[in-house]
Amino acid sequence: MAQKVITLGEVLMRLTVPNYKRLFQTVNFDVTFGGSEANVGVSLAHFGLKNIHITALPTNDLGERVARFLKLNGVSGRGLVRKEGRLGIYFLESGAMQRPSRIVYDRFDTTFAHLDEEEVDWDRVFKDGDWFHYSGISPAISQKAADLTLRALKEAKKRNMTTSGDINYRRNLWQYGKQPQDIMPGLVELTDVVVGGRVDLENCLGIQDDDWQRNCEKVKEKYPHIRAFAKTIRNAMSASRNELTAVLLKDGQYYESQTYEMKNIVDRIGGGDAFMAGLIYGMLHLEPQESIEFAVAASVLKHSTIGDVNLSSKEEVEALVNGNNVGRLLR
Amino acid sequence: MAQKVITLGEVLMRLTVPNYKRLFQTVNFDVTFGGSEANVGVSLAHFGLKNIHITALPTNDLGERVARFLKLNGVSGRGLVRKEGRLGIYFLESGAMQRPSRIVYDRFDTTFAHLDEEEVDWDRVFKDGDWFHYSGISPAISQKAADLTLRALKEAKKRNMTTSGDINYRRNLWQYGKQPQDIMPGLVELTDVVVGGRVDLENCLGIQDDDWQRNCEKVKEKYPHIRAFAKTIRNAMSASRNELTAVLLKDGQYYESQTYEMKNIVDRIGGGDAFMAGLIYGMLHLEPQESIEFAVAASVLKHSTIGDVNLSSKEEVEALVNGNNVGRLLR
Amino acid sequence: MAQKVITLGEVLMRLTVPNYKRLFQTVNFDVTFGGSEANVGVSLAHFGLKNIHITALPTNDLGERVARFLKLNGVSGRGLVRKEGRLGIYFLESGAMQRPSRIVYDRFDTTFAHLDEEEVDWDRVFKDGDWFHYSGISPAISQKAADLTLRALKEAKKRNMTTSGDINYRRNLWQYGKQPQDIMPGLVELTDVVVGGRVDLENCLGIQDDDWQRNCEKVKEKYPHIRAFAKTIRNAMSASRNELTAVLLKDGQYYESQTYEMKNIVDRIGGGDAFMAGLIYGMLHLEPQESIEFAVAASVLKHSTIGDVNLSSKEEVEALVNGNNVGRLLR
Amino acid sequence: MAQKVITLGEVLMRLTVPNYKRLFQTVNFDVTFGGSEANVGVSLAHFGLKNIHITALPTNDLGERVARFLKLNGVSGRGLVRKEGRLGIYFLESGAMQRPSRIVYDRFDTTFAHLDEEEVDWDRVFKDGDWFHYSGISPAISQKAADLTLRALKEAKKRNMTTSGDINYRRNLWQYGKQPQDIMPGLVELTDVVVGGRVDLENCLGIQDDDWQRNCEKVKEKYPHIRAFAKTIRNAMSASRNELTAVLLKDGQYYESQTYEMKNIVDRIGGGDAFMAGLIYGMLHLEPQESIEFAVAASVLKHSTIGDVNLSSKEEVEALVNGNNVGRLLR
Amino acid sequence: MAQKVITLGEVLMRLTVPNYKRLFQTVNFDVTFGGSEANVGVSLAHFGLKNIHITALPTNDLGERVARFLKLNGVSGRGLVRKEGRLGIYFLESGAMQRPSRIVYDRFDTTFAHLDEEEVDWDRVFKDGDWFHYSGISPAISQKAADLTLRALKEAKKRNMTTSGDINYRRNLWQYGKQPQDIMPGLVELTDVVVGGRVDLENCLGIQDDDWQRNCEKVKEKYPHIRAFAKTIRNAMSASRNELTAVLLKDGQYYESQTYEMKNIVDRIGGGDAFMAGLIYGMLHLEPQESIEFAVAASVLKHSTIGDVNLSSKEEVEALVNGNNVGRLLR
Amino acid sequence: MAQKVITLGEVLMRLTVPNYKRLFQTVNFDVTFGGSEANVGVSLAHFGLKNIHITALPTNDLGERVARFLKLNGVSGRGLVRKEGRLGIYFLESGAMQRPSRIVYDRFDTTFAHLDEEEVDWDRVFKDGDWFHYSGISPAISQKAADLTLRALKEAKKRNMTTSGDINYRRNLWQYGKQPQDIMPGLVELTDVVVGGRVDLENCLGIQDDDWQRNCEKVKEKYPHIRAFAKTIRNAMSASRNELTAVLLKDGQYYESQTYEMKNIVDRIGGGDAFMAGLIYGMLHLEPQESIEFAVAASVLKHSTIGDVNLSSKEEVEALVNGNNVGRLLR
Repeated sequence: MAQKVITLGEVLMRLTVPNYKRLFQTVNFDVTFGGSEANVGVSLAHFGLKNIHITALPTNDLGERVARFLKLNGVSGRGLVRKEGRLGIYFLESGAMQRPSRIVYDRFDTTFAHLDEEEVDWDRVFKDGDWFHYSGISPAISQKAADLTLRALKEAKKRNMTTSGDINYRRNLWQYGKQPQDIMPGLVELTDVVVGGRVDLENCLGIQDDDWQRNCEKVKEKYPHIRAFAKTIRNAMSASRNELTAVLLKDGQYYESQTYEMKNIVDRIGGGDAFMAGLIYGMLHLEPQESIEFAVAASVLKHSTIGDVNLSSKEEVEALVNGNNVGRLLR
Repeated sequence: MAQKVITLGEVLMRLTVPNYKRLFQTVNFDVTFGGSEANVGVSLAHFGLKNIHITALPTNDLGERVARFLKLNGVSGRGLVRKEGRLGIYFLESGAMQRPSRIVYDRFDTTFAHLDEEEVDWDRVFKDGDWFHYSGISPAISQKAADLTLRALKEAKKRNMTTSGDINYRRNLWQYGKQPQDIMPGLVELTDVVVGGRVDLENCLGIQDDDWQRNCEKVKEKYPHIRAFAKTIRNAMSASRNELTAVLLKDGQYYESQTYEMKNIVDRIGGGDAFMAGLIYGMLHLEPQESIEFAVAASVLKHSTIGDVNLSSKEEVEALVNGNNVGRLLR
Repeated sequence: MAQKVITLGEVLMRLTVPNYKRLFQTVNFDVTFGGSEANVGVSLAHFGLKNIHITALPTNDLGERVARFLKLNGVSGRGLVRKEGRLGIYFLESGAMQRPSRIVYDRFDTTFAHLDEEEVDWDRVFKDGDWFHYSGISPAISQKAADLTLRALKEAKKRNMTTSGDINYRRNLWQYGKQPQDIMPGLVELTDVVVGGRVDLENCLGIQDDDWQRNCEKVKEKYPHIRAFAKTIRNAMSASRNELTAVLLKDGQYYESQTYEMKNIVDRIGGGDAFMAGLIYGMLHLEPQESIEFAVAASVLKHSTIGDVNLSSKEEVEALVNGNNVGRLLR
Repeated sequence: MAQKVITLGEVLMRLTVPNYKRLFQTVNFDVTFGGSEANVGVSLAHFGLKNIHITALPTNDLGERVARFLKLNGVSGRGLVRKEGRLGIYFLESGAMQRPSRIVYDRFDTTFAHLDEEEVDWDRVFKDGDWFHYSGISPAISQKAADLTLRALKEAKKRNMTTSGDINYRRNLWQYGKQPQDIMPGLVELTDVVVGGRVDLENCLGIQDDDWQRNCEKVKEKYPHIRAFAKTIRNAMSASRNELTAVLLKDGQYYESQTYEMKNIVDRIGGGDAFMAGLIYGMLHLEPQESIEFAVAASVLKHSTIGDVNLSSKEEVEALVNGNNVGRLLR
Repeated sequence: MAQKVITLGEVLMRLTVPNYKRLFQTVNFDVTFGGSEANVGVSLAHFGLKNIHITALPTNDLGERVARFLKLNGVSGRGLVRKEGRLGIYFLESGAMQRPSRIVYDRFDTTFAHLDEEEVDWDRVFKDGDWFHYSGISPAISQKAADLTLRALKEAKKRNMTTSGDINYRRNLWQYGKQPQDIMPGLVELTDVVVGGRVDLENCLGIQDDDWQRNCEKVKEKYPHIRAFAKTIRNAMSASRNELTAVLLKDGQYYESQTYEMKNIVDRIGGGDAFMAGLIYGMLHLEPQESIEFAVAASVLKHSTIGDVNLSSKEEVEALVNGNNVGRLLR
Repeated sequence: MAQKVITLGEVLMRLTVPNYKRLFQTVNFDVTFGGSEANVGVSLAHFGLKNIHITALPTNDLGERVARFLKLNGVSGRGLVRKEGRLGIYFLESGAMQRPSRIVYDRFDTTFAHLDEEEVDWDRVFKDGDWFHYSGISPAISQKAADLTLRALKEAKKRNMTTSGDINYRRNLWQYGKQPQDIMPGLVELTDVVVGGRVDLENCLGIQDDDWQRNCEKVKEKYPHIRAFAKTIRNAMSASRNELTAVLLKDGQYYESQTYEMKNIVDRIGGGDAFMAGLIYGMLHLEPQESIEFAVAASVLKHSTIGDVNLSSKEEVEALVNGNNVGRLLR
């Protein structure tokens, strides 16, 4: 029986400028969808797990478009709340070589920002759940979204589910009056697996150290329930060429994945979410070292397709972990 | 020396679903731009007149994209105010046959809605102006936009310019607490040329009659300064086939254009604005009957190209009025 | 509670030559999917009913592609059997003006043709079903597909479901050794609603008459259990312009719909299936005259979008029946 | 054994603005090729005849591109002379509705204009030829092209071939110092079948009459060897809608084809050349009335595909003449 | 006088998913054509040699499409047999980075598989032939295709032509009851130049060795008439980055080409066939070391264009061999 | 107040074959525009400087298209002369890997080649100018263009403006009877900043040396007024991978930039012009070492977008110089 993971977060429409054009000159957009937590959910669904994603969508055709996107990618519709409002959008200008990619957000005052915790049917959504995942983006959007995240964590803990948080810090958000440290510590208290780098740990929890591992250990002193810390290490030589490694700190043990050289990157958006999904998959099914290898390989494969979500199957990720098929022509 | 027309209003990004697909299934969008009053300005620029368009644009690359669009189409950049905020967007699903076209708006809380009248350099913009044009859309957006429109009319009148208003009534707007009749009468008091049908006159001014001509006469009783009324009559058999006629009431005389049968319509958005621009051009250069013929022909040509704006030259409109070139292959 | 309709039949990949090119010169294809009975199911799902479609799909990525198409369009995956084999394909060269559209089939020896009745979980699929629909195409494909259709009818009748058959006669099929009259009479004996023209009735049942209504009556003499006959009447002036009327014979009463003039047809494939879905919807919810009006309007709307399936909602069809919205711009 | 037709004339690259955009705003072009006489040759090849087309092509990749286009469409490469120089180009802005299509030519000083009659291997090209065709365009391009045309006519007559000339008058050409009446009479003296309207006859031969039939008769008085005159009558209501009829005057008999209503025209360029090819085919294989019906039907089908050349087979044209298949879906 | 090479084998339609999308999500396909032996023939035609390719094509428009493809690329139509049946298809999902390319075949029961040796006009095709080439794919398809290949080899040997075989072993084929070692030895007995790696030699001939050169020598002991062995060595770091070297064993001498680093690979399909064509060209015109350099350079250039066939001219390959032009901008 | 730079030269339409296809097989073109000196002007406009570009454009829609391109990119229209004639065109086949890019020119006898110096309003154009730039291309086109360049230099010197010349030598031009050394020395006498490599210096000025720096010094002996020499050093490993360094010789000092490794090059056309613009910007605002760093970084960024012109802002170039943002995702 497939494990069931619940995710929560906003889904945005992504409008990408095609053919390496600049945003200020474009005459068309490619349409995809993404959002950090939904990306995790979609990826898990492609690995064969069950996913219910909690979000709010407008009652217009754009909301319908997103609902179809999620459904198509294996996400259950049970967590979708339809209500009046607008869909968040982001515009992507894809970089190349030494020219960085650029994002313009248009995501304020969206349907998700107004989603009230009472609008979610918590029992129906969390029934038989195994894992709950959130990110640091939702609590940065609005007080309601922060409340919603906290509520979801409580619902998960009430049911003895494992919880994970990708506590990524986004400076441009957090405009509704609260600061990360007003909110994030309360969430981390209910979080079993924390993903984030030193900057994230410092901004969200106010705990810092020059070394990530020691930083995590300091966090664990304060939040001893945390079972694992993880992050990816990206060495970006250009928009087209990166190196990627991942690390996991679990039960006092430090695990480091092999390093992948990524050349000719097709699309790096969602690389972290693909890692997150790989990690959840790994922690549900694999040993620690295998988990971190699975997670980083999932992230690498994400970079080879267009769109925010990882479309790789579990078997494809495993093949990469084992070094099979790379550079082959599969007939 | 070319006449100079000043226009004021919001410019939206239009995202069109290509190839007769439904919005809820699209994987890409064509990008164009439009806004009722800017459409008028662009069209006048293509006729060879000078146009300054007053609007607010975000300081991001989307704002830059709009600025380039306007510049490319001959609109002066002097009326453009750049400020923090978001760009209004509308999504268009193109109809065909008996299936109607559908628009989804995402235009609340935009940069334009927050444009303060003090941010416009009125003297620089209105210097040497001949005509000012607005529509009923701006005052429906926000109190600031309503104030801005009134201020612009006063600036125009201060300089003895002719003024026109396309007082189209949009039910879905007017959400900031005011009703049309709170605002529109004050604007019409400063308007020389009023374009609108019976529904518009009734909703905006509270003056009604079963017959448009009599309705206009009643309006003129209350607003005796109005020099002319006009409107188009569209008989829409399907999304692809319409008939179009235009009428003008000026100095007690009633002028009616020939009726155009429009088959195989390419894009009807902006048809009314193309008419408006044709009417302004006509009233600046032609006799009344010629004016209304020029205006309706301009509108017909608009229907033959994609996008909100009419790209036809004065000569092309004249050729259609004279029945030249239709169906020919111009080598 | 939504009614539940079960459909059965092959789903083909449709490869369409874009831009009015000829098939022998094309450099790309647009990809959609369709099959007479699945088109009916998808349309019903868009009307808000439940649909389970029984078919076989290859275990490769093409099969996955079809499964995603069905899922996206609201079809339950319970009736999908995955097995080794190939997916049927058809190539479409779209006509224009006096040039007819042309189809090249590549649909022999497909996974569906080999679907064994034992591979379907009949109880799971037919549980709580209200209506079962098939067409004359399945029994023409292979002995197994004919057996499968008969079995499905028996399963439906066992559960007191209503059954319908679009007994369209396709001369190019029927290559496995049987003739229509070897098979179709056995199916019609279990069919409540028969859709077909005179040619179909004659070829499938061997009963003929110069007049369709009389022809139906003769059929009813032999198959007195039939509750209704229906068909569409298409008057095709060109690939781009048709007229469409539909008729229904029920309880001895003859109902005829209004006639729609269809100009600028976007895509006529699946027009009959959209009618069939409209008829099923109508017979489940409406009076006879309303049913036939709903059905023909559904078919008309199908002609306005690309692809085999009708994407219109129930509300959109109703609006057309009532003459609302046609030629309007819905904001 | 297939008949062999030799044609002579320039082939241009056609760059078409897609999607009803204006030329002054385009960001891409569709590429096709055409030239009045080559269009005739290609069409004849699609009817199953042999065609050798005489022209000059640049020695660069553009010349290679044209050579491939001709080869692909069944034209023999024996008449192609490769030499230094440039390829003629024309830009097409496709009209719609009341907006006419527009062509911008860039065809001066091309390789063809410099083609010397000594560069053609006349014996190899004309061996076993049955028919030679030219148009009034070649003699209008340059003195060399005029000489070439005359030489070809002499070569044809030397071999007792039938000759035809589409003596269309193009005002924008004829810039090398000669006038039509300096050249065309010499060509018509060697021409058996003359295609042209009154304007053409008057401009090329200086013989005029208000009535085309009488005009032809006057021409025949002066050029009694002419065996037949023909032309199409196009009634163009808009860029999208035309009516087409064709007439033939042969042995004192006047033949008129049925009139085709052409709605939703896809591309009218080359419609006259498709007619010409149909006429040549007809005069080689059919009776006069059949010929003119075949020719006009060929022209109608040309309007349904994109590009200058008619891609219809003989069977497709015959089906239209017989009223078969129109509006059908050929499976 | 150009040398004449005869090739024999199936030609498939290749449907490629564009833009790095996955096959299971695609909405369109790019269309090209290829088949191992036809790829060799087309490449040789681009080098200036004559090629006749023997294959069977369906009598529908898809067959016509392939015939046009071959003609366009310089292949003579004399070897094309048109008959009822279906065209083989393969679907390509292009890999990127660490994600491998994947092919889904739909090539069973095709027209080629049913091509009877009596349907080929052997005398007409082989007249004046210099070289005959086949691959290990044809004999793996069906008994008829195996017979056809053997017959062709006999016809070639009867005329003292040189013969080559690319004895690539495809595990997924060979489903008609025979094993490679039932068929291939009989073919190799008539083959002068054998291309294949150790796996191929072992599977096809049952002769193995850990070292390719020794393996070839063992084969030569049994088949002493073989004049040369060759293969490419591909080191594939990712879908986008490979290294390529080629080796030739001739008259007891071992020749090795320079190694090319291929980054940013555009399309690797057909790389082996481009090598094969280069080798045939080389053995007809060059010394052994030059041959293997020419062959590997041809293969490298193939990787830089989309499609199965190498479109490079002889001059372009030579320039690469000589290190000219690489990285230059040729004006 | 922004500095004002005047540039002079031809602007060509560039028609690019998309998707790595070969020119001889293309079915469409992407349209952009460029010309060495206009590329410099556009780039400077994007840096925030004022640019007036002197050129001649045809009076047709193609000329209008170019005018719109320049206007859109910030170039003043004051230097544009509209006159009868043709627009120069170049066709680009984009290389990949070891396959070089290829250009086919169609640029003879253009409107620019016939631009008479009397047609330019020199006073209006040069008023308040700070810098004038030309290249070695204009004097190679026609005597008139050479005269025009000389006249512009004199106008610049008359106003004490700084002058720069990119004296690139193009062998395929210079077909009007003059040789570079007939013309270029006269231009260099009025040039303050000379950009060119050894080949250019030798061909244009007849002064040579094996070492570029010594070569420049020899030139300076003869032309002591020259203030600076510069060039880029491109090491091209393949069409997709280059290394780029730039050097500057000023006041006897030699400055060398860092070397950029450019992988995954998107489009290298105009790389030299982007450098030139960066150098002009640098010499107007920065110290020598900063200048050459700014210039080479500008050139690198040009390689990351499609089209001849650099669309980067000053801030983007500075970020690259400082090593900021490379490989980041800018939100």
